[in-house]
Amino acid sequence: MPKVSEDHLAARRRQILDGARRCFAEYGYEQATVRRLEESIGLSRGAIFHHFRDKDSLFFELAHEDAERMADVASREGLIQVMRNMLAAPDQFDWLATRLEIARKLRTDPAFHQGWSERSAELAAATHERLARQKRAGRLREDVPEEVLATYLDLVLDGLIAKLANGDDPAQLGAVLDLVEHSVRQPGQ
Amino acid sequence: MPKVSEDHLAARRRQILDGARRCFAEYGYEQATVRRLEESIGLSRGAIFHHFRDKDSLFFELAHEDAERMADVASREGLIQVMRNMLAAPDQFDWLATRLEIARKLRTDPAFHQGWSERSAELAAATHERLARQKRAGRLREDVPEEVLATYLDLVLDGLIAKLANGDDPAQLGAVLDLVEHSVRQPGQ
Repeated sequence: MPKVSEDHLAARRRQILDGARRCFAEYGYEQATVRRLEESIGLSRGAIFHHFRDKDSLFFELAHEDAERMADVASREGLIQVMRNMLAAPDQFDWLATRLEIARKLRTDPAFHQGWSERSAELAAATHERLARQKRAGRLREDVPEEVLATYLDLVLDGLIAKLANGDDPAQLGAVLDLVEHSVRQPGQ
Repeated sequence: MPKVSEDHLAARRRQILDGARRCFAEYGYEQATVRRLEESIGLSRGAIFHHFRDKDSLFFELAHEDAERMADVASREGLIQVMRNMLAAPDQFDWLATRLEIARKLRTDPAFHQGWSERSAELAAATHERLARQKRAGRLREDVPEEVLATYLDLVLDGLIAKLANGDDPAQLGAVLDLVEHSVRQPGQ
């Protein structure tokens, strides 16, 4: 493909993803209708779905972008740093709330569950890899299986998103993250 | 009011609340329309809204029933026991998922936020009261303010609900609760 078309394609995909993210953030997963997506993106449904198969494909691609960014931080600095970054970005709270709204769908719609899991696998892998490294370095508590620690951190991530979406005070939540960080460490570290 | 009418009134309210709970559990907060409420309850909207002002009043009354039951356990055995009871009641997971679905509404609709907070105040009060008692008994860690511990437990509750709503394994989550319980205790207890 000539360079100029590639650039155009990339710019168009970017426009669609940015608009879709704003739309999901404003209306929530269910209420982000195709009509509202058209308005937020500034393109017709024909143009949008030429690039992404359907609403769920768009949503998964946004989840994938998040997972990549979060996995990058998680592998270098751990999942707790990912959460601290969330506290510091209040403009993202609306979008984060969509992660709660899909819980029912994740449980009752196997195809949706699989699509979502594939896109968020990177973050889980990065978290596990980082925990294993911390363990080898003797920084992780040893009386609790790594698997349980990973589930614990993931549960705290969901809880944090719920609190932020509810409008809780980020400063108080920062103190909670200190406690969580302490609770996965080797005592004395 | 004569006894028979009182009994009838109580039975009717019970029928409405039980049907509404099933309806919210099946369809989620947003998709539980008045039409679906009529079907699940087996009464017309006129009859339903003679007893409860609107859909939100119904929802708040159900939240209030939960909060009362949970506060009762929390004040005697703590919020972690409330969470262990949740793990043991998979038939409630669908209903619990509604707590996540209202996060956006809680943040953007002040009247809804106030109605919800009033109905869940009992649980927060019971948790605080129990933490204070545990602290006096020397069972609570002392290096973290009680306020932070309360927020932590509340965040874990939301995270647990998200995991259950997603379909995570309750056994693995039980091991996570052991870790959480340990992390709020005085070391050596």
